[in-house]
Amino acid sequence: MDPKRSADSVTEMNEIVLPSDSNALGTAFGGKVMQWIDVCAAMAAQRHTRKMVVTASMDELHFHSPIRVGMIANLRAEVTATFRRSLELEVRVHSEDPRSGTRQHCCSALLTFTALDDDFRPTEIPPLLLETDEQRARQQAALDRRASRLKHRQR
Amino acid sequence: MDPKRSADSVTEMNEIVLPSDSNALGTAFGGKVMQWIDVCAAMAAQRHTRKMVVTASMDELHFHSPIRVGMIANLRAEVTATFRRSLELEVRVHSEDPRSGTRQHCCSALLTFTALDDDFRPTEIPPLLLETDEQRARQQAALDRRASRLKHRQR
Amino acid sequence: MDPKRSADSVTEMNEIVLPSDSNALGTAFGGKVMQWIDVCAAMAAQRHTRKMVVTASMDELHFHSPIRVGMIANLRAEVTATFRRSLELEVRVHSEDPRSGTRQHCCSALLTFTALDDDFRPTEIPPLLLETDEQRARQQAALDRRASRLKHRQR
Amino acid sequence: MDPKRSADSVTEMNEIVLPSDSNALGTAFGGKVMQWIDVCAAMAAQRHTRKMVVTASMDELHFHSPIRVGMIANLRAEVTATFRRSLELEVRVHSEDPRSGTRQHCCSALLTFTALDDDFRPTEIPPLLLETDEQRARQQAALDRRASRLKHRQR
Amino acid sequence: MDPKRSADSVTEMNEIVLPSDSNALGTAFGGKVMQWIDVCAAMAAQRHTRKMVVTASMDELHFHSPIRVGMIANLRAEVTATFRRSLELEVRVHSEDPRSGTRQHCCSALLTFTALDDDFRPTEIPPLLLETDEQRARQQAALDRRASRLKHRQR
Amino acid sequence: MDPKRSADSVTEMNEIVLPSDSNALGTAFGGKVMQWIDVCAAMAAQRHTRKMVVTASMDELHFHSPIRVGMIANLRAEVTATFRRSLELEVRVHSEDPRSGTRQHCCSALLTFTALDDDFRPTEIPPLLLETDEQRARQQAALDRRASRLKHRQR
Repeated sequence: MDPKRSADSVTEMNEIVLPSDSNALGTAFGGKVMQWIDVCAAMAAQRHTRKMVVTASMDELHFHSPIRVGMIANLRAEVTATFRRSLELEVRVHSEDPRSGTRQHCCSALLTFTALDDDFRPTEIPPLLLETDEQRARQQAALDRRASRLKHRQR
Repeated sequence: MDPKRSADSVTEMNEIVLPSDSNALGTAFGGKVMQWIDVCAAMAAQRHTRKMVVTASMDELHFHSPIRVGMIANLRAEVTATFRRSLELEVRVHSEDPRSGTRQHCCSALLTFTALDDDFRPTEIPPLLLETDEQRARQQAALDRRASRLKHRQR
Repeated sequence: MDPKRSADSVTEMNEIVLPSDSNALGTAFGGKVMQWIDVCAAMAAQRHTRKMVVTASMDELHFHSPIRVGMIANLRAEVTATFRRSLELEVRVHSEDPRSGTRQHCCSALLTFTALDDDFRPTEIPPLLLETDEQRARQQAALDRRASRLKHRQR
Repeated sequence: MDPKRSADSVTEMNEIVLPSDSNALGTAFGGKVMQWIDVCAAMAAQRHTRKMVVTASMDELHFHSPIRVGMIANLRAEVTATFRRSLELEVRVHSEDPRSGTRQHCCSALLTFTALDDDFRPTEIPPLLLETDEQRARQQAALDRRASRLKHRQR
Repeated sequence: MDPKRSADSVTEMNEIVLPSDSNALGTAFGGKVMQWIDVCAAMAAQRHTRKMVVTASMDELHFHSPIRVGMIANLRAEVTATFRRSLELEVRVHSEDPRSGTRQHCCSALLTFTALDDDFRPTEIPPLLLETDEQRARQQAALDRRASRLKHRQR
Repeated sequence: MDPKRSADSVTEMNEIVLPSDSNALGTAFGGKVMQWIDVCAAMAAQRHTRKMVVTASMDELHFHSPIRVGMIANLRAEVTATFRRSLELEVRVHSEDPRSGTRQHCCSALLTFTALDDDFRPTEIPPLLLETDEQRARQQAALDRRASRLKHRQR
């Protein structure tokens, strides 16, 4: 399969944080943000693989600041590495104050998805086109994380 | 207030159509698509005005093709015209088959929003920067539609 | 097919506006009201046609006043005109203060639905029985709007 | 307070059963129907009392037939009896096949609501106007049920 | 079929009351609590019968105190009696203040479920193992309630 | 503050996977499971700290098997380690086939929460009582993970 650019599958979501997304503190509750992150990453994973995908893992989700009701939650998912039948993506979430336009980094996360064929069995995917040193470093870091995840799973 | 470019407030949303968004035919039901359209337009309206906004009207929403469960709904809202205390936006919705990448125009709509100050009273907004003949034609068409809406309301 | 009275398919909905239906201003957000309007009109369209129906268009949705959390949203959908394989309906939404009983006209909209047969192809529907001059005027006005919609679509 | 007719607070709801309302059998799941019943009864209770109301009890909810996805759920709530600071209502739910128009009695329930003043304390409500023998019999039956509920609560 | 202990199918749910579960008073609205009760009881009924089940009735749902936003709703469902092809369960709901740990009895309800075979027809279920006098008294009380329900239905 | 046992804050949730929780493959979609995990862990964190808590991070969420519509999702959250003003919890999710009773490990995750005082500032929490070697090993492993998280955040 021909390698593909990560830029071609980048996926952006924008959501207004509504009272129905919030906890008793008036901010988007963690589980809701996780749900948006999963959907955003799933769309980018489908765009890269052109296959059905299922969430395999999530890691390094760190909340730096809350998103208040009435703010815009802006999500951006990008493929960071490909393995044989799965791929890793990073999602970055910013909150944007619609009144002032101020943007703040809210949280980020790394997710892996497995691609499935029509019989729901893992299937091969196109590799990521690595053009810059930064892209090659990200692929390598993802391979290291994956090795450590597999080791963790064997325990 | 300084005029602003429409490009600076363009807002994109991507959503996976889930079973919970669908009708008994297995496609996104009309009311759900309308809800996404309203949210997408509201974010672009806030980005242009930097004020609170409320939906004032929706017109010319035409469904050309349905969006099936499992497809990506891609929405794009852009300011088409500004009035003194309100503005008009167009939202275009495409369905994208995540497997083949095929995109199809699903529906479009025109919405107007009123900007509100902190006391919830209508308040002035920055005009749209009109740089091309096409932009000027869109502003004029919107003024015509608005005149016909006001005439309609007086009846 | 025998003509049918619009009175026989009139459909009424009542909903309490809950915090989960509201925006950051404490009022029902536009997209939620649109969703109720679509569902209410779809039920009346099904009752007239006794077919599956899908939303084809929405027009002239004008918000006159917001509906606050805790208020009752009262919707009433009525067939205003029939075409060969589609029909137009008007939905009128009132807010009702459950404490005082005060009713206020909140918004109205015109929707068209296409009737589908079991293979999901457009199919003929019963005409509307036109008994009064007012009903005939409404049918004619809808035909005019439809002609202008079709002209708009061809552009 | 002047007595009020039950006919003046009758409240009707119509809902399309969507996949998001259904269980794994393709029918509206019990808890969703209960939620609609509670909302419908609460609106009728508010219309009679013109006060805030909270659900106090539900009894004799009997499911006679399921409501399949795509059907219309039609609910009708009516005050059956008033006590000093609370009232009893009956909600009757029918399913309606939108294709054939066939209506079927799906379930019924009896609910009581307590009226609250602005300090959230139980407060007096207008009595029900009893004009026919049937209405008087319903009020008496409700008083009997209430006595048995109070006895049950003391145990 | 071998009798089964009620302890083996006891099912517990814990939910945080979110703003999206609340009414305009800031407490979980009745219909939402009913929905949780139905789901909790359905799981316990499935665990006892190992069949598909559908809600047949709900009775004696009494709200003693409201559950405020931010509180934990704790539900516990237990089989109280078995009939030939249906069973009765009691659900008890407590609110728990997560700050102080204070627990309060919020409401209780009795539900019956019918077990279904693969053709969706009522089917026999394992009887409840009655080991103590209290368990035998509960089974007898349920049989009495059931007789009175059947009498009620015939009217 | 007195140390507290992890057993005293263990929190269990049971949910039926409904069509509204599922993706186009008929299984609970990843984001929904993450939302349940976050809520379950938040309740256990509140029970241990008796404070308001906000999600700080999620790690090592690994999906081993999907949960199909109609299955019971069983979640169990337990505190694994405490830091000065935050704590780590593990959530284990099993799917349970209500027909056969077969349980399968579906996924697990590690989450940290920060405790907040009434001014929404991080505040101290009771330490975990470490009674067995296994508990001491878990606390140490969590401290190691935390050190690596902090190092990661500084990059």
